[in-house]
Amino acid sequence: MSEHTAHANIGVVGLAVMGSNLARNLASREGNTVAIFNRSYAKTQGVLDAHPEAGFIPAATYQEFADSLQKPRTAIIMVKAGAGTDAVIDELVKVFEPGDIIVDGGNAYFPDTIRREKAVRATGINFVGAGISGGEEGALTGPSIMPGGSDESWVTLGPILRSIAAVAEGEPCVTHVGHDGAGHFVKMVHNGIEYADMQLIAEAYDLIRRGTGKSPAEIAEIFAEWNRGELESYLIEITAEVLRQVDAETGTPLVDVIVDQAGAKGTGAWTVQTALSLGVPVSGIAEATFARSLSSHPEQRAVAGALPGPSTGSGTDEFTVPADQVDAFIEDVRLALYASKIVAYSQGFDEIRAGAAEYGWNIDLGAISKIWRGGCIIRAQFLNRIADAYAETPDLPVLMTAPYFAEAIGRAQAAWRRVVVQAAQAGIPAPAFSSSLSYYDGIRADRLPAALVQGQRDFFGAHTYKRIDKPGTFHTLWSGDRTEIEAEDTH
Amino acid sequence: MSEHTAHANIGVVGLAVMGSNLARNLASREGNTVAIFNRSYAKTQGVLDAHPEAGFIPAATYQEFADSLQKPRTAIIMVKAGAGTDAVIDELVKVFEPGDIIVDGGNAYFPDTIRREKAVRATGINFVGAGISGGEEGALTGPSIMPGGSDESWVTLGPILRSIAAVAEGEPCVTHVGHDGAGHFVKMVHNGIEYADMQLIAEAYDLIRRGTGKSPAEIAEIFAEWNRGELESYLIEITAEVLRQVDAETGTPLVDVIVDQAGAKGTGAWTVQTALSLGVPVSGIAEATFARSLSSHPEQRAVAGALPGPSTGSGTDEFTVPADQVDAFIEDVRLALYASKIVAYSQGFDEIRAGAAEYGWNIDLGAISKIWRGGCIIRAQFLNRIADAYAETPDLPVLMTAPYFAEAIGRAQAAWRRVVVQAAQAGIPAPAFSSSLSYYDGIRADRLPAALVQGQRDFFGAHTYKRIDKPGTFHTLWSGDRTEIEAEDTH
Repeated sequence: MSEHTAHANIGVVGLAVMGSNLARNLASREGNTVAIFNRSYAKTQGVLDAHPEAGFIPAATYQEFADSLQKPRTAIIMVKAGAGTDAVIDELVKVFEPGDIIVDGGNAYFPDTIRREKAVRATGINFVGAGISGGEEGALTGPSIMPGGSDESWVTLGPILRSIAAVAEGEPCVTHVGHDGAGHFVKMVHNGIEYADMQLIAEAYDLIRRGTGKSPAEIAEIFAEWNRGELESYLIEITAEVLRQVDAETGTPLVDVIVDQAGAKGTGAWTVQTALSLGVPVSGIAEATFARSLSSHPEQRAVAGALPGPSTGSGTDEFTVPADQVDAFIEDVRLALYASKIVAYSQGFDEIRAGAAEYGWNIDLGAISKIWRGGCIIRAQFLNRIADAYAETPDLPVLMTAPYFAEAIGRAQAAWRRVVVQAAQAGIPAPAFSSSLSYYDGIRADRLPAALVQGQRDFFGAHTYKRIDKPGTFHTLWSGDRTEIEAEDTH
Repeated sequence: MSEHTAHANIGVVGLAVMGSNLARNLASREGNTVAIFNRSYAKTQGVLDAHPEAGFIPAATYQEFADSLQKPRTAIIMVKAGAGTDAVIDELVKVFEPGDIIVDGGNAYFPDTIRREKAVRATGINFVGAGISGGEEGALTGPSIMPGGSDESWVTLGPILRSIAAVAEGEPCVTHVGHDGAGHFVKMVHNGIEYADMQLIAEAYDLIRRGTGKSPAEIAEIFAEWNRGELESYLIEITAEVLRQVDAETGTPLVDVIVDQAGAKGTGAWTVQTALSLGVPVSGIAEATFARSLSSHPEQRAVAGALPGPSTGSGTDEFTVPADQVDAFIEDVRLALYASKIVAYSQGFDEIRAGAAEYGWNIDLGAISKIWRGGCIIRAQFLNRIADAYAETPDLPVLMTAPYFAEAIGRAQAAWRRVVVQAAQAGIPAPAFSSSLSYYDGIRADRLPAALVQGQRDFFGAHTYKRIDKPGTFHTLWSGDRTEIEAEDTH
């Protein structure tokens, strides 16, 4: 072991795949010397042996780790989110000093990050929750990084994170998102949007497959083609790869061999739960999250399989697009996907805007869309258009009302409506397509039947209502003489 | 003041409208003598003076209150949910003894009830969280009551609650739901279903109004007619009343005078947040909750109002059902409402089943549907059919697969699909109708595109997948030679 002169400028704690890849990424960049620590030293030794080129400085104890770091000491924790994170923080706080910086690079739930930041700040040490997207590959070659925490910590941390982030159009995919939990909040919403994007792609695939009888390999070509246009994105690209894959064992498309029960690790649910607390409708993300849970209840699907479908022309549940309309149908699905995707992103950015207002974060929405252009899962050409929209109108209340998106939806909507109609008629579930359309028609409605809901609430619960023609809060004496009275505004 | 001989068999703490009405209800039933307490004695005196017929025993202090109660002392707390509840519990615990019973009749969030029950139980006192539905009117004349808590407490509490509950077909609308937080959990889901039911009614109203141009008064007659059939329920009944109401000041229908922004007090959001944690898709309740939040963002609706709608035949956004099809259209809407309502209840009961499994509650789903037949907001004829379904198959995995409901949906579905199609074509938001249909088509699908989602997740995150043809967990080496390997089942 080294004599631990303090010559590392950054350290990594936790050397599972994500941690060791991030450490290797850091070590590969000019100017970085990386200290590494793991609870079991055997893993540290293994990483050290496997990557002699990295020049890692290993530490066997937290004290050695601290001693090996230049001041302000800067360490990135890469352990499984939860109690393990708290345990590592406790140890680092013992050996670090005021002004040092502890970064949590795991997938923490943002309220935990807010709590930890507050507790660590009381010691004078900086705590930064940083969302890191891009999986194992991204950690190694360049992730999209969403750090929160103090301005002071960003002075030291900024250059280090910029050195390892993905680069999109010359710009590193990292920005100081906002204070305390802002980074993990934005990473959470990123994942929520990812759920919606994946579900929309899955619905597009399902409609084309069931409507045209095309094979997965043929549909792969359609996605590859879409990836050359306005839908260009990592998820569209890998969809083509997955659909192209043939199972070596059976010779059938891999997608037909995979059990159709989608897993989830909770960030989609967090995004929706948080949106519900903030009063932000994120119906596309919710439907995507529910579609995964619906798929994962085989015992329910087994009994529900007997429920009747529509009687289509042929008397079966199948739906066949006439041969001469196949190309038009596929183009309709592409446009429905694009319009629904605009809605999903609009809802996601709406949640970030509401979260920033609630938690006092000064978040630059355009900067967020830019750091998602590279390294992360939802990276897409499309994000440039979002950056443009916020550059033009930083306080845009609804993203999809920006001229570019309003025009795109205007162009797509007839197709979008046709696809939702066909899905409903054919009995093919398209929850995210339909829900996005309902949201679109709801938010643009001049008048909503919410007025009736208010009337019902006033009837059974005296919840009161407002009038369109004068200020104040009113209640009708429904069980009395049905006159209206002014009420206290307590409901 | 009285000499506080212990002759009350039940006490009420908190004398705002709900509390005083519940106390009056209790006092009006044979065999009950009711002690009352309020933080400010002036309110106690007011209730005492206003209702001499009730024979209330007033208490000025918690000690007097405890002294006035027979053992085991039984007190129902009726204060605003939150910190106030904890404060009252702290005081009662000081003056009560092991074996006594504290009931929280407020709208507590069930995890709080679980926490409180555990803390109070440690003192030997019983704590019961009881959901009480029916609003101020129900509290006075007979609510639907959903108590949790211990079996021991139920021995004393059962007869008292049975004495004041609503009665449906000869049966009191109260049952011992399950231990600790089970009562408040079930009350929460009741409210979530109520959100869905109200939104579905609002969509039905909106479609008929925009599609046929009928006036609110005319639509009131349609709802009154529906209330004589299988849709018979309190919410349908009061919808007719609300739509019939004419604003005295302007002479226009009241529903057109009410601002179309629906309020919410959080139980809908709790229901969806809890369902997300349990992995239960409650898309109808979620869309209803989101529809309210969407309506309540006027700043967003103002800008989104300019987004383009569909170009219908006339070149406007209006949608007109041809005169000779109006009756058929209204019948379609009725059937769509019925089918969607079956889905909403099926999802709600699914959440109760999942919650019972998660928290170890032994909940009789049929008994729950029976106690909702009277007193509460969602009371409906329909609930008898739910009770029948669970009587036949107590462990029914999906309520809507019961023969009665499967047949009803089978009968309704062509109409249901037509309505969703018309809404999408006309640009009228019908989020709960469409989402319920997507759920229906999803859960009965033989094969879902969730398989593609699993492929994507394996590609970008090595999340692994299962195969349909053999056990185990697998991963394709996407960035390698694309062969498949067996993987550890850790994702």
